[in-house]
Amino acid sequence: MIAKSVRIGFIGLGLMGKPMAQNLMKRGYNLTVYNRSSSSIQELTSLGAAAALSPREVAEGSDVVIDMVTDAPDVEQVLLGPRGVIEAARDGLTVIDMSTNSPRIATKIAGALAEKKVKFLDAPVSGGDKGARDGTLAIMVGGEKSVFDSCLPVFQSMGKSIFYMGESGAGQATKLCNQVVVAIHTLATSESLLLGSTFGLNLDELLKVLGSGAAGSWNLSNLGPKIIQRDFEPGFKAAHLYKDLKSIMHMAEEENVMLPGVATVYELFNGVLADKKGEKGTQVLATFLEKLASREIK
Amino acid sequence: MIAKSVRIGFIGLGLMGKPMAQNLMKRGYNLTVYNRSSSSIQELTSLGAAAALSPREVAEGSDVVIDMVTDAPDVEQVLLGPRGVIEAARDGLTVIDMSTNSPRIATKIAGALAEKKVKFLDAPVSGGDKGARDGTLAIMVGGEKSVFDSCLPVFQSMGKSIFYMGESGAGQATKLCNQVVVAIHTLATSESLLLGSTFGLNLDELLKVLGSGAAGSWNLSNLGPKIIQRDFEPGFKAAHLYKDLKSIMHMAEEENVMLPGVATVYELFNGVLADKKGEKGTQVLATFLEKLASREIK
Repeated sequence: MIAKSVRIGFIGLGLMGKPMAQNLMKRGYNLTVYNRSSSSIQELTSLGAAAALSPREVAEGSDVVIDMVTDAPDVEQVLLGPRGVIEAARDGLTVIDMSTNSPRIATKIAGALAEKKVKFLDAPVSGGDKGARDGTLAIMVGGEKSVFDSCLPVFQSMGKSIFYMGESGAGQATKLCNQVVVAIHTLATSESLLLGSTFGLNLDELLKVLGSGAAGSWNLSNLGPKIIQRDFEPGFKAAHLYKDLKSIMHMAEEENVMLPGVATVYELFNGVLADKKGEKGTQVLATFLEKLASREIK
Repeated sequence: MIAKSVRIGFIGLGLMGKPMAQNLMKRGYNLTVYNRSSSSIQELTSLGAAAALSPREVAEGSDVVIDMVTDAPDVEQVLLGPRGVIEAARDGLTVIDMSTNSPRIATKIAGALAEKKVKFLDAPVSGGDKGARDGTLAIMVGGEKSVFDSCLPVFQSMGKSIFYMGESGAGQATKLCNQVVVAIHTLATSESLLLGSTFGLNLDELLKVLGSGAAGSWNLSNLGPKIIQRDFEPGFKAAHLYKDLKSIMHMAEEENVMLPGVATVYELFNGVLADKKGEKGTQVLATFLEKLASREIK
């Protein structure tokens, strides 16, 4: 059990990281933070966090270091690169990567840190920026069970549903399975609205019907209305889902697992990015289908 | 408002039709039934229903005729064909087609019956055999609003969520949009479990995680466990979903609406039927993905 006196370092204060760090502070944890751009840092220091000048410096002043960055190369850089967390490696330090990347990266990082006696958990999240703000994230964790147990209060400060999934990489593996569903559901929601619009149906009513039975989903209830209202602000960015789909495709290729649904939605998000809409929310996929059909959802 | 003294005719006593007819009887309606094979008829007559020898005879003894048959040709045959309902056409008769087919068929039937002063509603359902047994179906209705209003008590005897969607065909249009989601969700559930199995994850735990967040769906919660338990008994048959996907593909072709997700899952169910698994439940799609990947979900 980690006491609140534990010092937490937080690297990556983006759309997800900033509210997660804030929730830790609300629960009484002392934070040292680091971010590439400085604006978010000032916001956190004004609330009482200490600012560090590098990931290494974060680790020097912390017992547990959490990173929440965008991409696998970023994770490797802040943890294993120059001025990275590994340069402050010591027995007793725990590192938690809450970014989404591949199980293979998680296993590689766990190995590199274990050589320096640093504990490591891969703990990606689901629930978007709303879940991050509300402290209701689902967190899926891989690594040693005893390390998971000791970090549970930290996870509970940021999320509602905390799952121990198995050894290193199991958290990331679970997250990729989650993203398979999230991506394909976004396609289902979009195609259904496009077809409904073609039929001239009242789309608000259509969503109500679909949500009441065997077609119901989180995606339909949460992204469906946004598509109808032409609200493409990101809860989760299209570019980030595309990155996750890329990880899944690579795994599927290596293992020779044919995933025709993932392949289809992967190509469509490739089109979304070509359309310069990667910074929009994943529901922007609907606009790419509109483009393919030369027809609007309305 | 239709009084319980209204005489209801019911044509088609299959997996869905039989429990729907039974629920009408439980609510006190007098039923005259017809089915191609006789075993289900005996079951209903033993409960007090009258048996008819043709759809025409059903209509002669009824104020409201409901049909719940498999395919568009069956619907046209029992309603418009020789010895069909139309041969008993008269002012005051109402026909409700609760089968799933295309909006175009609904409009065609509505027109043919209107010439004979017969009212028509298209009212396909969602919720599977379980919903039919429990009387909790979602029912999506197209046709004249006043006819819908007068039939509401009949619908409420079979379903929980009753939706008026607009003019003739709107019920079928809504159902096809529902099937877009149902089919693509089945692919999402199947691919996610296949990938999770490849990663060696505990699949029961995986479903729990996925169901708790942005990946949650009726499909995942209801069909996911069946796939893991190798239970491929039909709640809704793969062959029937394939038929619906075919209707959707035809509509999409005519309207030039590209639906890449539907197209993918349509082809996969084509494979399921080639694999002689059309009589299994839709979740049997997972076994076709296993075949493609030469790998089991376990």
